Amino acid sequence: MENQNNTMLCDFYELTMANGYYVLGKANEIAYFDVFFRQIPDGGGFAIAAGLEQVISYIKDLHFTEEDIAFLRAKGCFDEEFLSYLRNFHFTGDIYAVPEGTPIFPGEPILTVRAPAIEAQFIETYVLLALNHQSLIATKANRIVRAADGRAVAEFGSRRAQGANGASLGARAAFIGGCSSTACTISDRDYGIPASGTMAHSWVQMFDSEYEAFLAYCKLYPDNATLLVDTYDALKSGVPNAIRAFRDSGARRRGIRLDSGDIAYLTKKARRMLDEAGFPDCKIVVSNSLDENIIRDIIAQGAQIDAFGVGERLITAKSDPVFGGVYKLAAKEDADGKIIPKIKISENAGKITNPHFKKVYRIFDKNGMATADLITVHDEVLDESLPLELFDPEETWKRKTVTDYTLRELQVPVFRNGECVYESPSVHDIRDYCAQEVATLWEEVRRFENPHRYYVDLSQKLWDIKRRLLEKRGHEN
Amino acid sequence: MENQNNTMLCDFYELTMANGYYVLGKANEIAYFDVFFRQIPDGGGFAIAAGLEQVISYIKDLHFTEEDIAFLRAKGCFDEEFLSYLRNFHFTGDIYAVPEGTPIFPGEPILTVRAPAIEAQFIETYVLLALNHQSLIATKANRIVRAADGRAVAEFGSRRAQGANGASLGARAAFIGGCSSTACTISDRDYGIPASGTMAHSWVQMFDSEYEAFLAYCKLYPDNATLLVDTYDALKSGVPNAIRAFRDSGARRRGIRLDSGDIAYLTKKARRMLDEAGFPDCKIVVSNSLDENIIRDIIAQGAQIDAFGVGERLITAKSDPVFGGVYKLAAKEDADGKIIPKIKISENAGKITNPHFKKVYRIFDKNGMATADLITVHDEVLDESLPLELFDPEETWKRKTVTDYTLRELQVPVFRNGECVYESPSVHDIRDYCAQEVATLWEEVRRFENPHRYYVDLSQKLWDIKRRLLEKRGHEN
Repeated sequence: MENQNNTMLCDFYELTMANGYYVLGKANEIAYFDVFFRQIPDGGGFAIAAGLEQVISYIKDLHFTEEDIAFLRAKGCFDEEFLSYLRNFHFTGDIYAVPEGTPIFPGEPILTVRAPAIEAQFIETYVLLALNHQSLIATKANRIVRAADGRAVAEFGSRRAQGANGASLGARAAFIGGCSSTACTISDRDYGIPASGTMAHSWVQMFDSEYEAFLAYCKLYPDNATLLVDTYDALKSGVPNAIRAFRDSGARRRGIRLDSGDIAYLTKKARRMLDEAGFPDCKIVVSNSLDENIIRDIIAQGAQIDAFGVGERLITAKSDPVFGGVYKLAAKEDADGKIIPKIKISENAGKITNPHFKKVYRIFDKNGMATADLITVHDEVLDESLPLELFDPEETWKRKTVTDYTLRELQVPVFRNGECVYESPSVHDIRDYCAQEVATLWEEVRRFENPHRYYVDLSQKLWDIKRRLLEKRGHEN
Repeated sequence: MENQNNTMLCDFYELTMANGYYVLGKANEIAYFDVFFRQIPDGGGFAIAAGLEQVISYIKDLHFTEEDIAFLRAKGCFDEEFLSYLRNFHFTGDIYAVPEGTPIFPGEPILTVRAPAIEAQFIETYVLLALNHQSLIATKANRIVRAADGRAVAEFGSRRAQGANGASLGARAAFIGGCSSTACTISDRDYGIPASGTMAHSWVQMFDSEYEAFLAYCKLYPDNATLLVDTYDALKSGVPNAIRAFRDSGARRRGIRLDSGDIAYLTKKARRMLDEAGFPDCKIVVSNSLDENIIRDIIAQGAQIDAFGVGERLITAKSDPVFGGVYKLAAKEDADGKIIPKIKISENAGKITNPHFKKVYRIFDKNGMATADLITVHDEVLDESLPLELFDPEETWKRKTVTDYTLRELQVPVFRNGECVYESPSVHDIRDYCAQEVATLWEEVRRFENPHRYYVDLSQKLWDIKRRLLEKRGHEN
């Protein structure tokens, strides 16, 4: 359904480096890259992984057209043999990734690539873009849906999205995070996200009176007659005209939508008017620059609301609109296939990378609640029947031993030798899985303000390797 | 170049309303819609219009495929005759718009549509999305470029963009706002935005030493040898290795890039080291979560910088990531073709719309500086040889008379009877035009903090019509 090839959606430096690796004979050196992020948006306790399905489509479709190659030739900085090589360029490596809908935490590898250096380096930008964008929106949607406390949340933000994919894939990510529907029609066609919608203020204005506009709509859509009641004056005009139109039309499924004003006050008044008019089943939908904070606030004030429409603050994750996933070299293989761990130093300890080809496990207690995540070297064997000692990778004297636990490996194989070995679940299944996985997190981690930090620990073996590399670098300088 | 058809990128309510207009025989009633915005992002004094070229492509390509129609039929709420009508659906109306690169202000129509109700209503979402997204990024880029005070600003943010178009069209908008280049290759191929880039930290890590990595790069790209010097330690390792590599390779155009740490301190130190080594022409590029505020700050501290790379805070307009353009009915025509102005009331005075089919003029003083904008009814004739009385539309007793002025109509015809009558300038011309138009704004309007409010006034005739409609509505309720 996505008919756009995104091969050329790369940072230009990926091409200059690729050309360099090719010319220097390093094209086929095997490199390992990890995607991970450092900070949870909005100060939350966890994020939601999303965007893997688009990474898969991208990798499957990776190729340069003759036009692309001609374009690159005209840039004047690429070797002609390299340009020829690009004709048959495709992905031949391995990818492991955390399934969409999984709660994720800073520092752990969300996606790992093992591939010839050129390929592994080349896919950096699109892989990050896809995961960053959809994880951002899924995370924000999950916050908003949790704030709505069981009420439906519809995604309404296409017009304020940052580009067409911002709208359509944003709606997909919002659904994964827990939204019930979207206003974005193309997201229904292409990704199966249920689209719905009723009327704009202009519908009301196109008729000689509000009542006529409502009556006409109720007759057209008796099973989805949600009337926008605030074009003129919600309580004096909109709600009374809606009640008249419901009566005169015999609409079967009734609703009103409020898009302005004091939502808590107006919904309480409107609820009483509708109940007194004999429409206690008429739904009240609200939509006016909402986000998780406003939703929690108006619910606390007793607002009478059945569903929310959330627009710009969801589709752009307005309060914190960047998911800072990065793509870092973790290892390379020498000529004999031996894995050489690599580290990126930084003055800021939090920016130092975790070296090596790794695995990530989630540790569940006997009640199925997530206790911590553990990153190990890829070939470590863990035995669930033995006690597991965890320690804080920064304050290593803080140690704790867990028993009676189960482990789940978080990453699953997605590509092997360039072949896709993973089938994305339906978005409905991803959404269900997400809700189920979020429920394994302690309430203290799910808290909106100052949540408890969920631990992501390193195995002793990995920690020792990291320390050795840091010490070695310290000596070199 | 954009091979994606965005017809289905509509809000679902546009389809339910369209079906309604069709069934009720209102499909061909002529409606007028305006796009305008209410608040300038980041508290700035003006915004930059962008995105019109994408609106034009969208309108030209507007059509439903058989698959789209089958998809809509399956939704179960559309009239079969309406679905047939969609087979030949295309745009037949008129569009007027402010050219890309123009400084724009709250309340004035940026784009105006006159078309049969179904068509005019249907295009709402994509028109808003295109203008909102690119105007947001062009406005942010213009702030960042002005902060950089003559130094080049490269757009670097693809990996953090909100979707693929967020990256590619974001790079286009950033260029319009004044950026010099982008890292986004596809934006060069599709929109002609110059793409460039050099190396990531992983390049350095793929070699046995930083020096070898630098030397190899200098030999490959002697005319664009910009070396990333902070993989291990910028001053102890990166800059000395860069100097050695420059010497040993004979690279002709040299640069270093710093992507972490205290930029002001590091660039001053690095500048001295490069100068002392005999490379005073070596450029210093910096890139580390920059925006206009950080840039102004480090320049004020004497940082030695030749160019900036700006990523996530530009490509998402992080500090204020929504451009709130809206699409509002301004008038309809009756059966005789008479224009009936329409108004949308709100409890909030700032949200009341300006009714009628309108024109917007920019008033320039004798030195060519922009004095104010004036919105009139479409058929008013203004005579530049006569004094012009302006008044504040909210505080109408504040009046001022201007003489010795020139007027420029801001909107230009873009479509007439469905035919495109406008050719978009090249992005280079748009960028030049933008810089030139921003220079017509008083320094007080260009100020970053608490800028002077630029006046957007209504003509007496338009103001009288608006007041009459408000009073009429007041009586009805």
